[in-house]
Amino acid sequence: MPSALVFLAEGAEEMETVISVDVLRRGGIDVTLAGLKGVEPVLCSRNVKLVPDKSVADALKSGPYDVLVCPGGAKGAQNLCESAEVGKALKEQEKAGRLVAAVCAAPTALLAHQVAKGKKVTSHPSVADKLKGDYKYLEDRVVVDEKIITSRGPGTCFEFALAIVEQIQGKDKASSLVNPMLVKM
Amino acid sequence: MPSALVFLAEGAEEMETVISVDVLRRGGIDVTLAGLKGVEPVLCSRNVKLVPDKSVADALKSGPYDVLVCPGGAKGAQNLCESAEVGKALKEQEKAGRLVAAVCAAPTALLAHQVAKGKKVTSHPSVADKLKGDYKYLEDRVVVDEKIITSRGPGTCFEFALAIVEQIQGKDKASSLVNPMLVKM
Ligand SMILES: [Cu+]
Repeated sequence: MPSALVFLAEGAEEMETVISVDVLRRGGIDVTLAGLKGVEPVLCSRNVKLVPDKSVADALKSGPYDVLVCPGGAKGAQNLCESAEVGKALKEQEKAGRLVAAVCAAPTALLAHQVAKGKKVTSHPSVADKLKGDYKYLEDRVVVDEKIITSRGPGTCFEFALAIVEQIQGKDKASSLVNPMLVKM
Repeated sequence: MPSALVFLAEGAEEMETVISVDVLRRGGIDVTLAGLKGVEPVLCSRNVKLVPDKSVADALKSGPYDVLVCPGGAKGAQNLCESAEVGKALKEQEKAGRLVAAVCAAPTALLAHQVAKGKKVTSHPSVADKLKGDYKYLEDRVVVDEKIITSRGPGTCFEFALAIVEQIQGKDKASSLVNPMLVKM
């Protein structure tokens, strides 16, 4: 079964986190929601508390994963930027030619850890200026450039998660999830 | 500050739950995520674990709320159908002329508790047949009939939550949330 690790940092955008986890699981991907600070409930950006499946440290021992997913949220993305553990995992993922996905403010974590430099990316409009120097910045709702998948915000997360499913499980599997969820494509 | 209670039952659809909570909070509504069985983490339909803010019993002591929100998920909705506490709260809410909102499979809980009979509603297509006898069934992505707001699934939840914000906070407030979230309307 293909696998995904979704990082869960304090201040993560809870919609982006949960849509990613849920849609990937619907797509037949074994998802681990990995807490940066362990397995205690994590307070997200709008005060929803999510319980990680594992700590990042434990989760990374069980890798590799077909995709590493970075949800946004201003403070959540900042925490991903500042985590050496996240940086190491992202760099190894890129080096191994496996998928890295980031949405909303989280593409700034790619920059902070010097991952995917020069690739086509998008992000939340509010952090676009930080990325324009080091990446080819696009305003599409989802951008896929080889192994790098980026997207813009909570409202683009269904499309973001479906793009990840498509890369791993193929177009038919991804398309089969659209109607049961009533997603407007 | 206006207030909302979002029911959290085991088996709830986690995207529907979290999008409702998050968007209402962005809309300046004081949201209580209320666990049917208390305050322990609740296992949702795709194995995401959400921590309630309060038990339903405690939350209802602090009422009334401007809106009661019922997220879907097949098993979650079934649990809402079977809860006498939820039934009592929904009936009192209707009687007091306050808002009731339900998405996906959760409009079946309105039927189970004999709430809003005869009103225009929608739901997930998979439970439409259960509702067609007792309601005027529509296939719009969101249906607002006086104080009853219904919607169809995870992919309609941004629109659902924005419709709730609009009813409580007005159209301008609801519209102001669309662009920062990158919602495709
Ligand atoms: Cu559902």
